[in-house]
Amino acid sequence: MFKQIIKVVPNIFTLGNLLCGVLSITLNMSGFIETAAILIFFSGVFDLLDGRIARRLKVNSEMGVQLDSLADIVSFGVAPALLFHSIAPTSVLTSLAFILFPIMGALRLAKFNVKPTIGYFNGLPIPAAGLPLAGMGFFSYSNAWITLLLALLMVSPIKVKKL
Amino acid sequence: MFKQIIKVVPNIFTLGNLLCGVLSITLNMSGFIETAAILIFFSGVFDLLDGRIARRLKVNSEMGVQLDSLADIVSFGVAPALLFHSIAPTSVLTSLAFILFPIMGALRLAKFNVKPTIGYFNGLPIPAAGLPLAGMGFFSYSNAWITLLLALLMVSPIKVKKL
Repeated sequence: MFKQIIKVVPNIFTLGNLLCGVLSITLNMSGFIETAAILIFFSGVFDLLDGRIARRLKVNSEMGVQLDSLADIVSFGVAPALLFHSIAPTSVLTSLAFILFPIMGALRLAKFNVKPTIGYFNGLPIPAAGLPLAGMGFFSYSNAWITLLLALLMVSPIKVKKL
Repeated sequence: MFKQIIKVVPNIFTLGNLLCGVLSITLNMSGFIETAAILIFFSGVFDLLDGRIARRLKVNSEMGVQLDSLADIVSFGVAPALLFHSIAPTSVLTSLAFILFPIMGALRLAKFNVKPTIGYFNGLPIPAAGLPLAGMGFFSYSNAWITLLLALLMVSPIKVKKL
């Protein structure tokens, strides 16, 4: 029973990540751009904690890995892209960057789940792309080229050391 | 080479599903509720086709399964919940239903990926919850109890035959 309760603790943090992502989108819809950006950073904190707590409690699970990706695509793929979309001036380049960001994020997450790498990441991890975009959003700054670059780095073959 | 190209065809449909989900959210943000609802139905068409095409071409892959879940949480979890949120009158029940819908959807998707069932689904599949919510949204109708019920059915032990 106690073991069962302990097992769900990291997943509660992962669902906190997802919830902050969803709330970021609703705040963005209501025009609260800065708060929407902050919520993405809250997602980042939950994302950092869930894996660490799972390892500390020794309750790593496949369910946790799956939930984590589902939360990440919303909080670091869709929510930052929508923030960028709300700020950036309308242009073909803006639309391209906006569309490619969540798509490349999904490809990155799916690829990692199929072939997990140990000690390093293949391609920029999605939080490392979504958080800078949220940071730019917080200062109401948008740059389609940077957004496009972050999107492409996620599916690039660069190796990034795990934190 | 030809085999490599054939292999990505179903994934292009899955990314079409994700893209329609993201565009549904942006249309919702701009106040185009009906079009936002229609986009979720487009996601449904892509979702129906990707699996069938993969089976027909005999290119089912773990990458496809992972991408499919990532698209589904956006198109049938977050996008319909946001549509409901845009229409429904503000209340504690509305907030509860809005928050629980994507969370239960994520739990449902993660559970299925960890323990896939053959021939039937355990709990209501997420498109079967998201599409009725989008249908209600199309008619600018919202019902927090129905939304809550759909959310809970996703994590219930009911068995649903596969289409």
